Amino acid sequence: MTRDELYGNIMRKKSFLCVGLDTDIRKIPGHLLDREDPVFEFNKAIIDATADCCIAYKPNLAFYESDGMKGMQSLYRTVAYIRKNYPDQFIIADAKRGDIGNTSKMYARCFFEDMKTDAVTVAPYMGQDSVTPFLGYDGRWVVLLALTSNAGAADFQYIQAPDGTPLYQSVLQKSLQWGGNADNMMYVVGATRAEMLTDIRRTVPDSFLLVPGIGAQGGSLADVCRYGMNSKCGLIVNSSRAIIYADSTENFAAVARQKAQQVQQEMATYLK
Amino acid sequence: MTRDELYGNIMRKKSFLCVGLDTDIRKIPGHLLDREDPVFEFNKAIIDATADCCIAYKPNLAFYESDGMKGMQSLYRTVAYIRKNYPDQFIIADAKRGDIGNTSKMYARCFFEDMKTDAVTVAPYMGQDSVTPFLGYDGRWVVLLALTSNAGAADFQYIQAPDGTPLYQSVLQKSLQWGGNADNMMYVVGATRAEMLTDIRRTVPDSFLLVPGIGAQGGSLADVCRYGMNSKCGLIVNSSRAIIYADSTENFAAVARQKAQQVQQEMATYLK
Repeated sequence: MTRDELYGNIMRKKSFLCVGLDTDIRKIPGHLLDREDPVFEFNKAIIDATADCCIAYKPNLAFYESDGMKGMQSLYRTVAYIRKNYPDQFIIADAKRGDIGNTSKMYARCFFEDMKTDAVTVAPYMGQDSVTPFLGYDGRWVVLLALTSNAGAADFQYIQAPDGTPLYQSVLQKSLQWGGNADNMMYVVGATRAEMLTDIRRTVPDSFLLVPGIGAQGGSLADVCRYGMNSKCGLIVNSSRAIIYADSTENFAAVARQKAQQVQQEMATYLK
Repeated sequence: MTRDELYGNIMRKKSFLCVGLDTDIRKIPGHLLDREDPVFEFNKAIIDATADCCIAYKPNLAFYESDGMKGMQSLYRTVAYIRKNYPDQFIIADAKRGDIGNTSKMYARCFFEDMKTDAVTVAPYMGQDSVTPFLGYDGRWVVLLALTSNAGAADFQYIQAPDGTPLYQSVLQKSLQWGGNADNMMYVVGATRAEMLTDIRRTVPDSFLLVPGIGAQGGSLADVCRYGMNSKCGLIVNSSRAIIYADSTENFAAVARQKAQQVQQEMATYLK
């Protein structure tokens, strides 16, 4: 998907919501557990209920890998289901991969050729050759970790070089020298400190930012939009638990839809 | 596996070699391709041929994930085969995972409960809560990326804080505050700049270091031992391509064995 297509979807649906499919078999409604593939059935119901409120889905690989082969099968089925039934959805494999060049190339093949997602999250610690293999695919995206929303983000991401540049800024700056640009790279920027978005926008004014930490993790959508939005929206805001686990009864999908719609309606006001 | 057990295996076998199972279906001998699971057959032959020369195996997840569900099946079968037939082998899932706390917990479950490896490589960028969930398993290990062997390592890992501490040293230091110690945590330290091992040993004198970059990536085993060995060896040295792809004929396993044995024999001289 190109940046213009993504922006087109955002304006048409008045939404820049990404629904995080962090599906844990231990947390889904009990009545699904006797199905052949409960995780897929849960995802399918969530997707059917929320697809017109959001522009992206982000399955986190950990939740599927932790169920072994069966979990991976649920993931593949989920991605294929979205691809077939909702082709305008942007699919992000939240995998946080990154390895030496020839190995990252294998990961790129996994997500872009085999699983066929639009984007994959990548960790920057190993530098240029760990990231560039993901950039060689037309219309596919790297979502590079810059500033994450967890407590541990403070351990390294804020460390300043002697010239005062914090590590997350070095990541943004270097990525632009690696061939990353607003058409093939986005950045994970946690919502917990929205005012830092101003600083980030100076380095990557046109790029999309994938913002986790709205909802369960406590960030404010208004602040994210105030500091992070650009002329082509430039934001994909993720919510996982606050939507998919909003209800644990047979009514879970309808409640998930209500939650997603609430976020979408708030988003519509910021897109005006 | 405890540190003493690992050290015991090293002294008994006079080897601290880890064979990297970076098995790419595009690179294995042609005669295997008509088998039902060529990747597993290749691994099985390599393992049977090299098991008495090495103390660890390290499958890199990317090579299996890139073949989708089939590749993951080959990986699970490989780990189970080693576990059953060579229970003294230390198995490292080279996955370079790392995510927010509740997600890292799922990854830990994947590798330690489902796949049943002894260790998993973890990327430090997201800090404490991305690493500690892997530490809650007796006899299981985190192998934390500190200084990697690729060119991109220079992009961020050497960045110095105002007090002169390079990022890879901050990673070592912080990990010790997180509950990491010589009995539950090792570090990836690339062999390309072996003299830096002296510096690393000051911070983590007793810890095992997993050293990639011997062989195809060009590091020197003698230098690694000179600068990195401690009183209980403290080194696991990995070689992947130089062993497993040393020959591409039907004779590949025998040649892999020769290569592994050469390394083991050199290692034996350093263990005296």
